[in-house]
Amino acid sequence: MGTPLPAADARASDAERVAQIVERLTLEEKTAQIVGFWEKGDGEVVAPLQGEFTRDGGLDDAMRHGLGHLTRVYGTRPVDPVERARWLWRRQRELVERVGIPALVHEECLTGLSAWQAATFPTPLAWGAAFDPELVGRMAELIGGSMHALGVHQGLAPVLDVIRDPRWGRVEECISEDPYLVGATGTAYVRGLQSAGVHATLKHFVGYSASQSGRNFGPVHAGPREIADVLLVPFEMAVRDGGVRSVMHAYTEIDGVPTAADPTYLTHVLRGAWGFDGVVVADYFGVAFLDILHHVAEGLGEAAGLALAAGVDIELPTGDAFLEPLITAIREGKVDEKLVDRAVTRALLQKAELGLLDATFDDEPPTHVDLDSPEHRAVAAQLAERSVVLLANDGVLPLLGGSKPAPRRVAVVGPNADKHEAMFGCYSFVNHVLEHHPEVPVGIEVPTVLAALRSELDGVEITTAPGCEVDTDDRSGFAAAVDAASGADVAVVVVGDRAGLFGRATVGEGCDRDDLELPGVQRELVEAVLATGTPVVLVLLTGRPYAVGWALEQCAAVVQAFFPGEEGGAAVAGVLTGRVNPSGRLPVSLPRPAGSQPFSYLHPALGGDGDVTNLPSTPARPFGFGLSYTTFAYDELVAEQAQVPTDGRVRVAVRVTNTGQRDGDEVVQLYAHDTVATVTRPVAQLVGFRRLSLAAGASAVVHFDVPTTRVAFSGRDLTRIVEPGELQLWVGTCAERAAATSVRLVGPVHAIGDDDRWTETEVTAS
Amino acid sequence: MGTPLPAADARASDAERVAQIVERLTLEEKTAQIVGFWEKGDGEVVAPLQGEFTRDGGLDDAMRHGLGHLTRVYGTRPVDPVERARWLWRRQRELVERVGIPALVHEECLTGLSAWQAATFPTPLAWGAAFDPELVGRMAELIGGSMHALGVHQGLAPVLDVIRDPRWGRVEECISEDPYLVGATGTAYVRGLQSAGVHATLKHFVGYSASQSGRNFGPVHAGPREIADVLLVPFEMAVRDGGVRSVMHAYTEIDGVPTAADPTYLTHVLRGAWGFDGVVVADYFGVAFLDILHHVAEGLGEAAGLALAAGVDIELPTGDAFLEPLITAIREGKVDEKLVDRAVTRALLQKAELGLLDATFDDEPPTHVDLDSPEHRAVAAQLAERSVVLLANDGVLPLLGGSKPAPRRVAVVGPNADKHEAMFGCYSFVNHVLEHHPEVPVGIEVPTVLAALRSELDGVEITTAPGCEVDTDDRSGFAAAVDAASGADVAVVVVGDRAGLFGRATVGEGCDRDDLELPGVQRELVEAVLATGTPVVLVLLTGRPYAVGWALEQCAAVVQAFFPGEEGGAAVAGVLTGRVNPSGRLPVSLPRPAGSQPFSYLHPALGGDGDVTNLPSTPARPFGFGLSYTTFAYDELVAEQAQVPTDGRVRVAVRVTNTGQRDGDEVVQLYAHDTVATVTRPVAQLVGFRRLSLAAGASAVVHFDVPTTRVAFSGRDLTRIVEPGELQLWVGTCAERAAATSVRLVGPVHAIGDDDRWTETEVTAS
Repeated sequence: MGTPLPAADARASDAERVAQIVERLTLEEKTAQIVGFWEKGDGEVVAPLQGEFTRDGGLDDAMRHGLGHLTRVYGTRPVDPVERARWLWRRQRELVERVGIPALVHEECLTGLSAWQAATFPTPLAWGAAFDPELVGRMAELIGGSMHALGVHQGLAPVLDVIRDPRWGRVEECISEDPYLVGATGTAYVRGLQSAGVHATLKHFVGYSASQSGRNFGPVHAGPREIADVLLVPFEMAVRDGGVRSVMHAYTEIDGVPTAADPTYLTHVLRGAWGFDGVVVADYFGVAFLDILHHVAEGLGEAAGLALAAGVDIELPTGDAFLEPLITAIREGKVDEKLVDRAVTRALLQKAELGLLDATFDDEPPTHVDLDSPEHRAVAAQLAERSVVLLANDGVLPLLGGSKPAPRRVAVVGPNADKHEAMFGCYSFVNHVLEHHPEVPVGIEVPTVLAALRSELDGVEITTAPGCEVDTDDRSGFAAAVDAASGADVAVVVVGDRAGLFGRATVGEGCDRDDLELPGVQRELVEAVLATGTPVVLVLLTGRPYAVGWALEQCAAVVQAFFPGEEGGAAVAGVLTGRVNPSGRLPVSLPRPAGSQPFSYLHPALGGDGDVTNLPSTPARPFGFGLSYTTFAYDELVAEQAQVPTDGRVRVAVRVTNTGQRDGDEVVQLYAHDTVATVTRPVAQLVGFRRLSLAAGASAVVHFDVPTTRVAFSGRDLTRIVEPGELQLWVGTCAERAAATSVRLVGPVHAIGDDDRWTETEVTAS
Repeated sequence: MGTPLPAADARASDAERVAQIVERLTLEEKTAQIVGFWEKGDGEVVAPLQGEFTRDGGLDDAMRHGLGHLTRVYGTRPVDPVERARWLWRRQRELVERVGIPALVHEECLTGLSAWQAATFPTPLAWGAAFDPELVGRMAELIGGSMHALGVHQGLAPVLDVIRDPRWGRVEECISEDPYLVGATGTAYVRGLQSAGVHATLKHFVGYSASQSGRNFGPVHAGPREIADVLLVPFEMAVRDGGVRSVMHAYTEIDGVPTAADPTYLTHVLRGAWGFDGVVVADYFGVAFLDILHHVAEGLGEAAGLALAAGVDIELPTGDAFLEPLITAIREGKVDEKLVDRAVTRALLQKAELGLLDATFDDEPPTHVDLDSPEHRAVAAQLAERSVVLLANDGVLPLLGGSKPAPRRVAVVGPNADKHEAMFGCYSFVNHVLEHHPEVPVGIEVPTVLAALRSELDGVEITTAPGCEVDTDDRSGFAAAVDAASGADVAVVVVGDRAGLFGRATVGEGCDRDDLELPGVQRELVEAVLATGTPVVLVLLTGRPYAVGWALEQCAAVVQAFFPGEEGGAAVAGVLTGRVNPSGRLPVSLPRPAGSQPFSYLHPALGGDGDVTNLPSTPARPFGFGLSYTTFAYDELVAEQAQVPTDGRVRVAVRVTNTGQRDGDEVVQLYAHDTVATVTRPVAQLVGFRRLSLAAGASAVVHFDVPTTRVAFSGRDLTRIVEPGELQLWVGTCAERAAATSVRLVGPVHAIGDDDRWTETEVTAS
């Protein structure tokens, strides 16, 4: 192009302005706007099959015709963010000078901006465990603020895949097995991030989490009803309620059709049914995978055509298919150039919306940023504290402040007791795992569980030894751990996962499991410590739920903390000592047998125990489960009306009382079950929840106001409907049946229309 | 009715005659014709939730208005078949006298007629391993002959569920994970049974085998393409090529819709697309399950209406829903009586076809039957011998006749070494498992592996001890087994499953597994014997493939025999000694990790090792694998034409030579892979096979003539098509890639029409 852009004209809409630009661009300039460029520093592999692709030439070459996205400017190498910002501003100025349009800068930001020295918050399973979308929203706002300050426009988060099989390594990037909890939490994340002026990106649209046997990229076996009623739900909430601006396709295929080549979801559902008008980006190399992995395209040009036709607008991380191969295919008449125009129009409209069509980068880049401010630390701490789930407790916890005397000697053992990496998920990348940069200091302060306990257990003797690694079969350290535990009043054994990428860890992208036994010899370590007779408090820092039913029986207490982030060590220590009253709840069922996957608490009726199969159908701990140091009682749930129109709202109220001796938070959960329907319905379904702080002895009335859309489902003809009939409702601390009531939905079958938004259940407390 | 039936009129068709009958029947008489009655002797549970249903009154009461089916006359109690036949003939005469129409008698017959003293053949996994549909057909003809002689009209077999997850207990009733092998073998069974005048029943239509995590009755997660291209294939073959007369619905739901309530498969596909004009029967209690298990009906009357509308014609085993509840629903206007007329018309047409509308039962019942004749034994032996799969062999086998000296002392240990039940699957019922009738002698002679080895290893010292049971954790017998093995030249260790029903066994209906480790402490037993240093020959008598990759490494030889039937002990012994040259091939992949399910060799491309997941994607032994005591070589595969029309036939030839020192059978297998298609296609797909006997040094040319329908698939719009493009072909002894050729399918996309029958690949040898 080389000439200045049409100036912003108050009379011309963004659409008119973008149309004028598109008309003036050459084909090369257009395709340049719908690809990214990834200036990788050191060849570390952070995307599948990354090694297959090496775009020739450097950034200068890539900028010749303009550039759509700059890929991961901050996230690949441990560089000073301010220094990197100077580089970015300079490059953006060059782009503006050359072609008039700067690049959109995207970054990973799932648990914090992926940049050195940036805060790392708890991972999504911990958000789910907190049952606290509002707090997740505050976290996302902080993340967005950091990104905005550094010139990043789009974040590749949140992950809204509904957990279907915890063997999958990327479960640690997911929020929950419940679509509503995923949707409510994810929508809050989107709102928070976007309130800072940074576009969020929903991942992975759609089906990825249901891959066969929990293997990354495995085929997805699911019918259209399951897709619609389970997997699409959180995406619809984040699109329609959350107003998200970008969506990323899933790598996987559903029933034989790769989603990146399928207009069904990327276009018909997303834009047609939901009215999405943002931009669809490719997952890294996902367009090329249509050729080299799925084999539904012969060559990259055909892959590009398929992806564009399906509704993929931007190819990331680089332009493997959308540049030369696509241009050739267009010139050979095999792909319609109009598909490029559609994509580049969407891309430029996004840049217009972000102000990028008028950006000059003449201002100075930031000379100081605090990506890990006290406010970051405070939110990280609060979210971590709310995410710790107490799974079992025979009274050994809290260690301090109970009626029993404080311990004089505490052993803190296990491979995750003193590792800061154990706090982080695999999408922490450069700042945190640092497996490629051991020479660089960790950019932020991350007290381990051991360090935090030392600080809280002032005057208590602490003995320690790791015992083993998380993922080897080396038992040579067992003796030292047993020694440390012997004679102690309590042994805190901290085990779990190490997060990482592509087979180099026990959980994370490309780190799947065959079954759900604790990795390595960690169970043996726990059993060795148990054999000392010292009461064991088992702490799980994991990226998935493991089959630890055995530990619930044998340990004095079991604490599930997932990956709790930079303040996670303190949060865990706080729960152990009693400074923090635990209030996290399981966002995923705790599996009973190690090989019983896939499983979801949303299953239909399966018959009673032993009726049809010898295997138990209940988990070791149900979805929503979590103990407290106080107790809560529920007065019977009351429905406001016995009959509710199928297009109405179900209003119920319940009194919750803190009947124990300590202040505490309860997560009040409302479940529904449709007793008879034209298709099978889950035995239990979360339709509303509320985190509630109650002082000892205090009580509150919680009012749930549930739109009937929450119990809608795809009927026989796949239209989403609400049917008349009995709806059982119960409230409690988990998905297990509790005191119940029921309402009768009355009136005709209500077909959900465009106006029935996925509004959340309103919950108030008084 | 009470009055004589319209006499057979040479001028009137069956349809006219049946229409006249239906018009004259009362509603009570009509519903009586579409239900069964099960006169159970002793309350043993052989169907899920059987205890929930107790039809009041005895047979006299049930016969008042006539009776559609007599359920399992021979199969529930160990009674003399001739005695039981007398009872049956008397009851049939009573029915003819009362209402003019006798009952249709149905029985289980999967591995032989389920009657005391009847032959028990190998189970379906062994049929699959034999890769010998013709022999399975001969077996079915014998089974049908026994049934016909005893007045049984319909057999509830074969099971054509395609194996998707071996954790499922009913895998032992299934043939293979490959739809074509299932279809070809099942079609042969249907033809054989029906050639004896007995109607076969395809089970379970459709989806049952894909239940979640291999749990019986678990929801089926599958889209319409997977259903069409994998699960429906064998059913279509058996309907269109095999002309089967009856089909049984599956208990399960697919994507939320129970098949018993879904016209999609039972009516639109089965009758509409395939032209089936037989009778659809309910799986036992399956109609009531729409109410009490799936909760898609409110009450049994509504369940009856749903099932009839979907296309279920006959309720089995009794009339829980199709009698009083249905009659009430019709009288209340909730169900259309025309649905009953449709079902009863089909039921009576089937009776007309079976000659039952003219049967008087004035003849004498059989006074002598030989249900286990020398011919039965010979076919049972041949099928068993062909089904034994040699998985590993370091040269220890055969025990006799090789270059090495014969062993002087052989240990034969393990829980399945001397158990006749270990030869049988769970659908052997009364004659064989006899768990409810320990006081009754086994009705047939069943030499165990130990007994057969004693007889073949004349003059060899045999030491023996069971070591443990298959399914307990009692290790107290290990020492005796180790003693028996110590100092022996070889230790044959026979482990595996015990088949049974509803949680009382390690495999069988309702006996599912969480993972695929050998049950109980059997692996430990094998390891204890291995520790003696005596070479171990591991023999697996199992109803599913287990994860025994460890044994392939450590044992001198491993033999997989599934459940080989009454002559199975001799067949296994024959393979061990060398009397029989093993020629069975794996009909299911041998899993590598114990928890890696579901898995199918028909998976799409998954990337190379480590590309996208840390877990291996290959099994321990591939589909089709099996060793021999001789060796075979293939001359390069040659395609007759380089280009084949999309609606044509692919013709390839290969020379196979027995390059070893012994005569032997090879199973020549032809595989195809569609390199690029509009949907993902499996990396390998069996499209033809041929069992071939070759004398040492001999060779033959095998010609495959493959209709392109074999590589058809459901395109983007779910129309079944054959696309142009490259088709890779290879031939070998298993699904792993071997010397390959390719052809190019040319011409337009060919949409499969009604005339493109699922004809089998023709294979000839010259």
